[in-house]
This record gives sequence, structure tokens and C-alpha cells, in this order.
Amino acid sequence: MVSVKNNDEHMVIFQPSGSRGRVKQGTTIAEASRKLGVELEGVCGGQATCGKCKVRIEDGYFERFGIDSSVEHLSPVEETEKQFFEKHGELEGYRLSCVTEIRGDVLIFVPEESRKGKQVVRKAATDRKIDVNPAVRHYYVEMLPATLEDTTGDWERLGMALEREHGLTGLTIDYLALLTLQETVRKGDWKVTASVWMGKEVVAVQPGRVEKSYGLAVDVGTTTVAAYLCELTSGELVATDSMMNPQVTFGEDVMSRITYAMAHEDGLKRMNDAIIEGLNRLAGQVATQAGIKRRDIVDWTIVGNTAMHHIYMNIYPEYIGKAPFPPALHAPIDVKAREMGLKISPGAYVHALPIEAGFVGADNVGVLIAEEPYKRDDFVLIIDIGTNGELVLGNKEKLISSSCATGPAFEGAHIKFGMRAAPGAIERVQIDPKTAEPRYKVIGKEEWSDVLKDMGARGICGSGIIDVVAQMYVAGLVLRNGRLNTELGHPRMRQGEEGWEYVLAWQDETSIGQDIVVNQSDIRAVQLAKGAMYAGAKLMMRRLGIEKLDRVILAGAFGSYVDSTQAMIMGLFPDCELEKVYAVGNAAGDGARIALLDVDKRRDANKYAREVEYIELAMEDDFEKEFAQAMYFPHMKDKFPHLEGWLPESQAAT
Amino acid sequence: MVSVKNNDEHMVIFQPSGSRGRVKQGTTIAEASRKLGVELEGVCGGQATCGKCKVRIEDGYFERFGIDSSVEHLSPVEETEKQFFEKHGELEGYRLSCVTEIRGDVLIFVPEESRKGKQVVRKAATDRKIDVNPAVRHYYVEMLPATLEDTTGDWERLGMALEREHGLTGLTIDYLALLTLQETVRKGDWKVTASVWMGKEVVAVQPGRVEKSYGLAVDVGTTTVAAYLCELTSGELVATDSMMNPQVTFGEDVMSRITYAMAHEDGLKRMNDAIIEGLNRLAGQVATQAGIKRRDIVDWTIVGNTAMHHIYMNIYPEYIGKAPFPPALHAPIDVKAREMGLKISPGAYVHALPIEAGFVGADNVGVLIAEEPYKRDDFVLIIDIGTNGELVLGNKEKLISSSCATGPAFEGAHIKFGMRAAPGAIERVQIDPKTAEPRYKVIGKEEWSDVLKDMGARGICGSGIIDVVAQMYVAGLVLRNGRLNTELGHPRMRQGEEGWEYVLAWQDETSIGQDIVVNQSDIRAVQLAKGAMYAGAKLMMRRLGIEKLDRVILAGAFGSYVDSTQAMIMGLFPDCELEKVYAVGNAAGDGARIALLDVDKRRDANKYAREVEYIELAMEDDFEKEFAQAMYFPHMKDKFPHLEGWLPESQAAT
Repeated sequence: MVSVKNNDEHMVIFQPSGSRGRVKQGTTIAEASRKLGVELEGVCGGQATCGKCKVRIEDGYFERFGIDSSVEHLSPVEETEKQFFEKHGELEGYRLSCVTEIRGDVLIFVPEESRKGKQVVRKAATDRKIDVNPAVRHYYVEMLPATLEDTTGDWERLGMALEREHGLTGLTIDYLALLTLQETVRKGDWKVTASVWMGKEVVAVQPGRVEKSYGLAVDVGTTTVAAYLCELTSGELVATDSMMNPQVTFGEDVMSRITYAMAHEDGLKRMNDAIIEGLNRLAGQVATQAGIKRRDIVDWTIVGNTAMHHIYMNIYPEYIGKAPFPPALHAPIDVKAREMGLKISPGAYVHALPIEAGFVGADNVGVLIAEEPYKRDDFVLIIDIGTNGELVLGNKEKLISSSCATGPAFEGAHIKFGMRAAPGAIERVQIDPKTAEPRYKVIGKEEWSDVLKDMGARGICGSGIIDVVAQMYVAGLVLRNGRLNTELGHPRMRQGEEGWEYVLAWQDETSIGQDIVVNQSDIRAVQLAKGAMYAGAKLMMRRLGIEKLDRVILAGAFGSYVDSTQAMIMGLFPDCELEKVYAVGNAAGDGARIALLDVDKRRDANKYAREVEYIELAMEDDFEKEFAQAMYFPHMKDKFPHLEGWLPESQAAT
Repeated sequence: MVSVKNNDEHMVIFQPSGSRGRVKQGTTIAEASRKLGVELEGVCGGQATCGKCKVRIEDGYFERFGIDSSVEHLSPVEETEKQFFEKHGELEGYRLSCVTEIRGDVLIFVPEESRKGKQVVRKAATDRKIDVNPAVRHYYVEMLPATLEDTTGDWERLGMALEREHGLTGLTIDYLALLTLQETVRKGDWKVTASVWMGKEVVAVQPGRVEKSYGLAVDVGTTTVAAYLCELTSGELVATDSMMNPQVTFGEDVMSRITYAMAHEDGLKRMNDAIIEGLNRLAGQVATQAGIKRRDIVDWTIVGNTAMHHIYMNIYPEYIGKAPFPPALHAPIDVKAREMGLKISPGAYVHALPIEAGFVGADNVGVLIAEEPYKRDDFVLIIDIGTNGELVLGNKEKLISSSCATGPAFEGAHIKFGMRAAPGAIERVQIDPKTAEPRYKVIGKEEWSDVLKDMGARGICGSGIIDVVAQMYVAGLVLRNGRLNTELGHPRMRQGEEGWEYVLAWQDETSIGQDIVVNQSDIRAVQLAKGAMYAGAKLMMRRLGIEKLDRVILAGAFGSYVDSTQAMIMGLFPDCELEKVYAVGNAAGDGARIALLDVDKRRDANKYAREVEYIELAMEDDFEKEFAQAMYFPHMKDKFPHLEGWLPESQAAT
């Protein structure tokens, strides 16, 4: 992306969404954000007083391409803006969007608090039955106070009380818990609650009786990070939140992040710092939601693909990026949260789930223990759709897995009007196959667009993207090969700034002052993503020697909101009985939560992570050919008997 | 020590020796140091060019007494000194002694490198037979390289190799060792040496074959810290060094350090920082001596009395300083060196030996496993002499212990010409009982002072102090009650600046340009120290119901250099058969070394630390009376049948 500088137009990129485009000299950042579909908060109407539109100016990105991007590319700070920051505390690199003009190429990071609309956590936790058998348990004890006749040490007193009252023996104590033990014991008047990890180590001591204990399960996706705060005695999910992975500024997919680590001396450190800082923030958010303190969290489980795993563990990811791709370790590992820089209860452990192979990491292990395909008789295909897609195929006899880079299209990135699942996002789309007129549903509104005109639409989220592409194909607006059908002469199909586009929502139905469209490059992004998944599934079926799928489970970023029929129509996976295709939400995150609540499942995770056989798709014969064929809707050659009546008649028979 | 400011004379205190005195306005620090017997290095003859005499100006001490001590109390930095520091790097708070004039009260810290003469490590390791069964062992393995067919993780590969080649199973790996594993493995071309701790955890991995492994045993005394670097496969002691405990600036005995922690918000932090920084320096010194790097040290054992233990473990020592005095823990504890701030091999553990009770700490546990009184039939008294003295009495049936604050007299502090055991220190003294003329031996010279006139004496170290006091008593220069006998009219007994004093060495035999004397307050300091020890031993004998000692073992700072007969003559302990009294050197440090080399002894340490019964001397009836009587030489009332012929005739029969 080497841009030639032009005095009249400048390249602007907004992170973490990745939205980009050229704007005229003198455009304010706020104006540019609206033009590019990045909505910023702002209540003062451009008076530089509310500060809600503040953004951070990044200077790393353009430098990588030898282009100097810095404050000179913006209008200087003027009096009102200066007053705002003086009043509220200077923030290095921050500017107010409403008054700052763009005068050169800039990379802008929109902090969470400046983004309009609270994200609907589409990585929401699914309601699953989970045994409650946590790694950390609370034990209340009444110790015998020290006397002149018995000056036994406080730790020995606590140990004796835990043995006497709860039968616990052979315990050790965390070093930091030891350092504050004497204060704590006296604060509780010799009555304390000890948090014991795995029946082995006292990781925290609190004065008095503390009934509830808390643990955090986290799924670090390439693009989206989800956190689930659970109460460990009841197993109850008490708070959940998500954020963009702050590493997106270093690269949008796993390979670009690995490359970033290798190309920059402090690359790993920067990415690790970013995710750890983000995780601390997220932990603080769920703690606040639950009305507890971050230090009340006494256990933590974490999953992520192999690259995310290595980066959050602070392991240099070079070797997983080049043949023969061995990771530093497959095994699960328990590390003190503090050693990773995570700020919860000082003595708490993080349990990092094991990884499988290739980029099929701990996230997919989470999927395994959530869905337990190793207990099934029928052949199941589990598709975990994220920026890095993972596939598992098999049954209790044998399981194989593979991964492919799908890109973040289904997470709303790399799509012109793509957005996260937040109020204003189009989440459902139907297109009349006869008239090619759409109706859609927006998050936050009860009615569909054919009933309610004031939809306040802002963009399209993952489930909406699947719907709109499948429905455009069914309505003949998109051809099998993915090209927009420009010969229909439909009034919604038009030449836009970036080529042909289909208008999904007219300007007056939106809150962004412009039409929401789907253009050719959006369709291409979807084709690449779904083609990779489909080709992977095909090659895996060949490996196992099976002709048809008994069951397809859709897991991933868009959670349980995806319409499984639309997903099959656009060819995300091979044909399967429609009733046997369903979405389960964020199974990786659920797996992290299951491992948090039930230590036996940690053992399962380790066992099955080893047993699943990994297939390196890129090394399979015909991968390129299969991929090319799978780019078609729903596929160039394969039949879909279960979609009879759903596909356009001209093509269903093909 | 509230001094009234005087424009002509100023109070100067040198640390860590504690030497103090008044000097005239305009005296240079170098001149003051010579006057007060603190010898500084210096080769440029006062040209401010060699920098060897640099000292640090402390500003904490006087402030505590409301006296402002800062740079205005010194002459301003002039051109030559400025040039020196510019050339060699500015050192905050440092000045060159040779050109800096004293113009007010100052507290001066003499850094190790500026002290003249290398210390002879009197806390030297004793030659003991120790089984070699270390906690950390090296295992060389040749791993199977990763291939495209086998992409098992590096940690699993290492684990398999350790199992295949050495039968080790169920290992875990230190988090930091894991972070660098992939680099290390490739650097060694899949051949590595793993350091395995307790057969459980890989704490370090080095490329290629590494035969030798190193461990450090450290004894943190209140005044002196000794370090022993051992090679763990042979058990060989490869380097040893010692330093003053840098905490001396915060208080000279354990109670004053506890008080300091309680009186200052960051008191514990400052003392912990001081000892940890000192230990890192000491570890670096022994590593350099041995020609290895600090990070080659893969294990560490540490002992110290209860207060030192709590402070080096960073545990707030409040509760061991007030009734009922329970410690935070008695048990041994294994903590990652990095968590304590100790900079050796990043994954290495520190094994902190257990403590007994009261101030009888891990140092005495070291003495126990070194001397093993729990295996003896005869009743043995073990005296560990340091700033805090510890006593153990008993046999295999029963052992009791106690502690008393003796002060640092036997370590050369609080004695006018006291010094550490370094070249120039008077270490042996004999005084002719008829003529009261002394002869003495100096560290670094082969001959005694009656043969060689040019002795170059600089002061008196611990063993010399015991000798000179005992011999002065035998010669009638000191009376039984400790008063100098000023009625002899001896030419060496004179009125000095600080009252009566006995000249041990004339100015022309010394290298400090003045006479070396023993004065009344020196005798008092010795009386207090020996009186406390003796009274403690008496009360312990009463507890056990024994009338006589079968054996007396002298351990402590002055190592094996003490003359046991002289010690008994001055009444350091009750009467015992002379052949059964002997010095064993720094048994506490030896215990640390034994625990380093033989894990079975760690178990013994824990077992016997629990079994020894602690006696709180201050709570025993008659302690004050016993102490008062024990201040006499050798005792006010007790008989010493085994000293017949040794004591002055007039007094032996008393």
C-alpha cells in the first residue's frame, strides 16, 4: 500500500476496523469517519468540549512503508482542543476528531470508548450444562491464634486449620500470598478464607468468610477477544464482554502477525504488551459489570489459535511460521497470571489450554471439549469461523483437523460497510427472488425494514453478510462465479465510486447519511473466506474417505446468529441434511469456560488435543484446484440435494 | 546521637564499619578516614584522578535526628573532581575523598571497591565431607529434530528425550525456560542440556553439552554476608566471598531493623532492596572468581536469623518483633529467584531454609545440619557468634535453642580499632603476664611482632579481640569486672582521647600513622557480648538439668580462627574440658552449603528445625542476674576447673 502523496487527497485508515479510503485536504477526522462508515461518539456537536470523539494518531503503519505520518499530517492543535486536553489530562498522541483536519496520510486508532454503540457480544456464551468442579476452591477456616506458649508460624497455623477443618494436606502457599499472610490473618481476626488451587497450593487468602469465588475464561481470536466471568461455586456466568484484538494494528491475520514479530526487534513484545494490556482492561470491565474487583478473580483459562497462543504466552512465533512448523509446546501449561503481566488475584494461575497442530490451536481444543465430537457415532464437521478458520471432522473413531486463513470478512472487517454486531448493524437479510428487493432486520429494532422505514442502519455484521450474499445469489444479483449481475438493470444495482454495487439500504433508512451497499470487493472477500473453508472440508472428507456429512456444526465469531441454511446456500460447507446443520455460538469460548469450571475437562482437552490428527491443507494435492472450485456459489461442481428448492432454478440442477 | 553543631569540629561516621569521631573544619574525607582508622584505597596521591577513594555521601542518618546533612556540609565539587566524574560517568552522591573537605556533620559510606585490602573471608567454608545429591542436575540429551511428518512441539520433544535417555517422567518446564526453548534447541542443533530441579521441573535449558552446574549457598548475617559457590556435580567449593550486610545503615542489630521497618513506610522495601542488590553483587563476584556467568548459577540456598530471613524474603517483620512473636512461616520454602529479584539463571529456585523460633532462624538450622547434635550422645553446646548470637544445647534425646543480641563486637564493629579480617588485621595476641608486653600476629605476615617490627597493622579483627581481652585479663591489665587496671603504671596504659586505653601496637608498627589501642568502651562491648552468651548457656543448662558441658562448639563470623582457650578464659561459655572445645568456622554457611549439595539434608533441616525447643531467654527467671554475673571475666561466681593454671593466680581460686 505505497501511496503517492497527493496534496489534495490523503489516505486515511481507521483501526481497529480497518476501514480505509481517500479524503480531501481539510476534511476533519470526524467527517472522514462518517464517509468511511466508522462511527464515532460525540455529543457536543463539534465544539471540542465533550471529548467523546477522541482518537489516537498512530505513527507506526506508514513508517513501515517509508512514509512519514505524524502530526504535520494533521492541522495543529488549536485553542479549544488544547483547553480540553489541559482540563482532562493530556493524552499522548490523542486528538479530537471534530476539530482536527486531515492534511496528509494518517492511521487513526479509535479507542473503545469513542466507538458509537455498545457491541452486542456475538461471542456470547451458549447455555450449556457444565459440571462444576473448579480448579480453585474457597475454604473458610478459623485458625488458632498465636500465643506465647505456641508461637508456631502463621502459615503452619493456616495449614493445620485447613487440614483439621477440610482434610487438606501437603499444601504449599504462593509466595505473594505468603508475603501478606500475617496482615490478612490479623485483619480477619484469625478467620480467613483460603483459595486453594488444584488441592495443592494456597493462591490467595482473604480475611473473614468469602463465599463466592470468580474465574475468567477468555477466547483470544485473531480479530475479536471474548471474556466470560464465572462464579466458581455455582458455575454461573456473571458477566461477559468482548473487544477487538488490539493486535490488529500489527497485522490482520496470523501470518502477518508472525511476520511482524520476525521483522521487528520488539515485534513480539509490542504484540504481547498489546494483548496483555487489552486482557487486563477486559478483565476490569467484566469485574465492574459483576460488581467485584479484578483481584477477586482467582482463576483464568485462555484459548486461542496457535499464533495467538504463542503471542499471549510471549513465545516468539517464528517457528510456527516456517516449515516444519513445530510449536514451542502442545501441552497445557499453568503459569502465574502475574508472570504473564495479567493483573488479577496476585497468586492466581492462568491455565493455557493445549494446542493441536499447525494453526489449530487451543481455541479448537475449546471447541472439542464443548462439542465432544470424540463421543459421537456420526460424522460431524465442525467449522469454527474466525479470521483464522478451523475445521474438525470425524467421530469417536478418528478426528482430523485443519485450518485456513479466511480473513476477517465474517467479523465485519474488509467489507465496505462491515461492522461489529452492535446496534444499527444489519443482521438478517432476505431478498425477494422475483423483484430483487431486500428486507432486512437491524440489531436494536424489533421490526423488519418493510414495516419500519426509520431503521437507523449503520452497517452489516457477520450474519448479515452471509445472508445478503446468499440471498443476492439466490435472486440472481450475484452470479455463481461471484460477479455482480449488472445486466438486470435493477435500480439498486449501480456504478459506485468503487465499481458496481448493490444498494441494501437507502440513505433515509440509515443513520450514517449515505446508502449502505454491497460491492464487488465485498463479494470477493466472502468468496475467499467461504472457498477456503469449503475446500478444507472437502479435502478432509477425502482423507477420511467419507462422501457425505452427517452433521455440520457452525461455531465462531458470529455466534448462534448465523442462518445455517443461508450459509449452506452460499457454500460455506458441503451438502448436508438441513436439520443437521446448526450454529452453536462461540464454542471456543465455551470450551474455555468449561475448562474453567471443570478440571476434568482440562484433562479431556489435553487427551483429545493429542489424538486429533492435523492435516496441512496447503500440502494436500489439489488444494488450489479445490479452492478455485469452492469459490463458486455454492460450488462449481458439487451437488446440493438438500438445497433443492432453495437454489435459483437455473443453477440448482447444474 | 544528637550532636550540637560546632563550626570548628564536625561529626563524621564511616559506614559500614561504623567508625566515628570529630574532625576539624576543612579536614578532607581521606584525612578523616585515616584518623578514624578507616582505610581507603588511593593511588594517585590526592590528585583526584584515580577515583579509588570515592565514597558515597549518605543523607538518611542525620535526618533521622533532625540534622540536615547534605552536600553543603562538604566543600563544593571543584574542577579536577568534576573532570574525573565526567570522564568516568557521574555517580549520584559520590565524592572523591582526597579532595573533598568536611564542613559539617556527614555520614559516609565506603563502597567495597574503595576499601583497602581484600577481606580474608573469615566466614570461610570449612572442609567437610558432604554427600553430593543436589536438587538441580544436568541432563544432556539429543532430541529428534522436527520434520514435516512429525511437528510435535519442542517441549514435548525435550520431554521425550529426557524420558528416553534418562528415565525422567512427568516433568514440567519453567515458564521463562519455555520462552527461549525454541531458540536454545536450534542453537544446540537439537542437542541440549536440561537443568532439572528436584526431578520435577526443567529450570534451564542450554545448547549443547554442559557438564558443570553451579549453585550458591548464602549465609545472611546481621553484619556479614557470606557466599559459597559450589560446582554441583563434584560438590567442589569453587569460589567464596563475603560483604558487609548493606542493611547496617538501617540499624545494627535485628531489633533496630525491625523497628526501622515499622517506623518507615518503605522501610521493608529499602532493606529488602539493599540485601537483594547486595546478594546480586556478591553472586556476580563469586561467579567472576570462578570464571562463569551469574546466569550459570542454577540453584541457591539461603540462611539467616529470623529477622534476616523475613527481610530477605520481603516479609514484613512486625510480628516477629512483638509478643507473641510468631513468624510468617517456619517451613522451608522454594521461591523462584526472579520473584525475589535475584539475578541468576532465570528459572532457578532459591531454597530458603526453615527457621526455628524467636530469632533462632535458618542460620541456626544450618548449624544443626552441619554439626548434627541430634546424632550425639554427649551434651553439646553450640555457640554461633554473630551480631545476633544463637545457642543450641542438648543431644540426640533433646535439643533446646535460644538467641541473644550480642552486638557486632566480634565482627570488628563497635571496637575503636575493630576491623574485618583483612590484611593488616591483628588476629592473634599474646601478652606476657609478667611484663604485660604484647606480641601479636597480623593477617598477611608470617612472623609475630616480636620478630618483625614492620607489621603494617591496621586494626584488630574478631579473633584478635577475643585474644587481647582474654590476655589483658590474664596479665592483670583488665580486672574481673572489666575495668582497665590503671594502677599498674604500665607505659602502655595511658589516658587517651576517650579515656584510658592500652596500646597494643605502636604507631611505627602500624600502617595507619597512629597507635592501635584497646580502650574501656571496647572492653565493655566485649563484656556485653560474652555476658549474654554465657548467661544464655547457663539458663539453658538449668532447663535441661545439666551441670556440665561435655562439648562446646564455636561457630560464627570469625570462623575457625578463634582460640577456644582464650574464649573460655574470658568467659564466653561455662567450663568445659579444653580438648572438647573447638571452633568449626561458619557452620551456618556450611549448613547452607550442605543443603545446597544434598537434598536429603533439606529434609533433615525441616525435621530438626521443628523438633528443637526454643527458650525465650528474656522470659527466664534470673536472666538479668545471670547476665550481670556473666559480665565478669570469666564469671563472677562460676568455677573453671579446666582453666587451672591459665587464669591469674589471684583470681583462679575465687
